[in-house]
Amino acid sequence: MKNILLIGCGLLGSSLLRGISKKKIAKKIFVYEKSKKNIEKIKKYKLPGIIVKKLSDAVTESDLIIFCTPMSEYKKMILKINKHLTPKHIITDLGSSKLKSKEVVKKNLKKNIFWTSSHPIAGSEVSGPEHGREDLFENKWSVLIKDKETNLKHLKFLNSFWKKMGSKVVIMNSEKHDKIFSMTSHLPHLIAYNLVKSAQDFEKKQKYDLIKYSAGGLRDFSRIAASNEIMWRDIFFDNKINVSRAIDIFIQNLNSFKKDINSNNNKSILKKLIQTKKVRTKIIKLKYDIDKPDFGRD
Amino acid sequence: MKNILLIGCGLLGSSLLRGISKKKIAKKIFVYEKSKKNIEKIKKYKLPGIIVKKLSDAVTESDLIIFCTPMSEYKKMILKINKHLTPKHIITDLGSSKLKSKEVVKKNLKKNIFWTSSHPIAGSEVSGPEHGREDLFENKWSVLIKDKETNLKHLKFLNSFWKKMGSKVVIMNSEKHDKIFSMTSHLPHLIAYNLVKSAQDFEKKQKYDLIKYSAGGLRDFSRIAASNEIMWRDIFFDNKINVSRAIDIFIQNLNSFKKDINSNNNKSILKKLIQTKKVRTKIIKLKYDIDKPDFGRD
Repeated sequence: MKNILLIGCGLLGSSLLRGISKKKIAKKIFVYEKSKKNIEKIKKYKLPGIIVKKLSDAVTESDLIIFCTPMSEYKKMILKINKHLTPKHIITDLGSSKLKSKEVVKKNLKKNIFWTSSHPIAGSEVSGPEHGREDLFENKWSVLIKDKETNLKHLKFLNSFWKKMGSKVVIMNSEKHDKIFSMTSHLPHLIAYNLVKSAQDFEKKQKYDLIKYSAGGLRDFSRIAASNEIMWRDIFFDNKINVSRAIDIFIQNLNSFKKDINSNNNKSILKKLIQTKKVRTKIIKLKYDIDKPDFGRD
Repeated sequence: MKNILLIGCGLLGSSLLRGISKKKIAKKIFVYEKSKKNIEKIKKYKLPGIIVKKLSDAVTESDLIIFCTPMSEYKKMILKINKHLTPKHIITDLGSSKLKSKEVVKKNLKKNIFWTSSHPIAGSEVSGPEHGREDLFENKWSVLIKDKETNLKHLKFLNSFWKKMGSKVVIMNSEKHDKIFSMTSHLPHLIAYNLVKSAQDFEKKQKYDLIKYSAGGLRDFSRIAASNEIMWRDIFFDNKINVSRAIDIFIQNLNSFKKDINSNNNKSILKKLIQTKKVRTKIIKLKYDIDKPDFGRD
C-alpha cells in the first residue's frame, strides 16, 4: 500500500496512526481532524502523519481511507470527499453499529464506490488522541462486514490490514453484527449509564454520599458509564431496534429476579445465580479477561 | 485483647485470620468452619489459627466473636453458641445487609448479650479461604452499625479493631446502611447477574457465540456475576424491600432511556450520558479506583 487517510483522530484514529506508522504499513499517512483541540494534542504528542486541512488532495493520493469519526459524522464527510473518490479507493469505517450506517452510505456515497465496514472491538472509557496506543488492536477481534454488495477484493485487503495491526479477524453480515453487539456491548453500556444515573437520582433524593461506598459494585459500572457520549448516542440511535429488544429482554429478566426475591424463591434464584458464573469461567479460559480478582486493581 | 473466634473461614474469614495473625492482635485465634473442603484448604495453605470442631470452649475462651458466614447461617450459629455467651462477649458479623439480620439476632440471641454489626466493603468475585489476603481490609471502608440498642463500648472496641486491620471506619444506622448499599452494591450485583443471564438467553435463542465478543462491555459484568451465589441470595432476600425499590428506580430510568432512543431525543440522552461521567471523575479523584483505562487490564 502506498498512502492511508485517517478521517478523525481520536482514540481509535490515533491508535491506527501510531500502529500504521510503527509497522511501516504506509508510505504516507494523512490525518484529517476537525477538532482544533485534537490537532493541538496530535502536535503536542508529536504523533506521526501529515495533518491535512483539505480533504481533496489527501483523498486523491490515498489508497485506503478509514473513517474514525463518530457515526453521525459519516454523511458530512462522505459528501466532502465524494467527488474525489474512484472505485479503486478502499474505504472502511470503525463504527460500532452497521445497518444504519450502511443506509447512510448507500444514500450518500457516489455510485460505483465501495464501502467495506470494519469494527475493531477495542474501545475504552477514555477518548482523544492522547490515549491512543500503537498496540490497541493487538489480539483484539476485528469484525469485517460482508453483505451482498461487499467488494470481495476490498474485504480481502482489509482482512490483511487488520491482521497486520495484530487483530484477529471475523467476518459476518451487518444484521448479525448489530444483533450480537446489541447484547454484548450496547446493552451493557446502556445499563452502566442507567445504573450510575439511578444512583445519582437516589443520592440527590436521599442526600447520602453514595460514591464513598461505590467499591461494592458501582465503581465498575462507573468506568463504562464514563465512555464518550457522542459515540454512544450514535450507537444507541443507529441500532435502536436491536437495543430496544435487548432492553425488553433485560427488563423481563429483571422482573423475574424481582419476583424470586419478593417470594423468597430459593430454587429459582440460585439456578440463575449459579448459571451466570459459567460465562466468567469461559471468558477467563479463553483469556478474554485477566483472571485476577477485581481485575487485579488492588 | 486475648482471643478471637472466627465463625466461618471463607474469603473474609480467612483474610481476617491472616490479618489478625500478622498484626498480632490476638493471643489465640479460633476458627470454626463447617465445610470440610474449606478445612482442607486452611490446612493446605498452612493458615494460622486453631481449628475447632466444637464451639463451646472456643466461645468461652474468646473475647471477640466474628461471624464470617453467609447471613442465612446466623440463626443456626447463634443457637449453637447462646448458652456459652456472656454480656462481656463482643460479637460482630460482616454481613452486607443489616435490618433483617438484626431481626434474626433479636429473635434468637440470648437476652443481655450484645451484637455490634460490621460491614467491611471488601468483597470480591472470588470466594474460599485460598483467596483470603492479610491486607484485604486495608484502605477499605468498614461500616459499623449504631442503632438504639448498640453497646457503645463494643462499638468503640470494634472501631479500633477495624482500624488495626487498616480500614477506614464509618458509623451509621441499619436503615441507612441498607438503603445505601441497595444502590451501590446490591443493585449493581443484581444488574450484572441479570445482564449475563439476558446474554445467555439471547445466545441460546440466536445460536450466536456471544462470549467471543464480550470485550465490548459484557466481560466487565461477568466478573461481578461470578460472585458467590449463597451470599448474594441472602443479601437479595434480606434486603428485599430496598432492592425492590432500587429495581423500580432502575427500570423507570431504563424506560426513559428507551424513550429517548426510540424518539431520537438528542438533548435528553446527551444530558444523561454526560451527567454520569461525573461519578467516574469523582471516584478516580478520591482514589477509589485506579485511573488507568480498562482497569489497566491490557
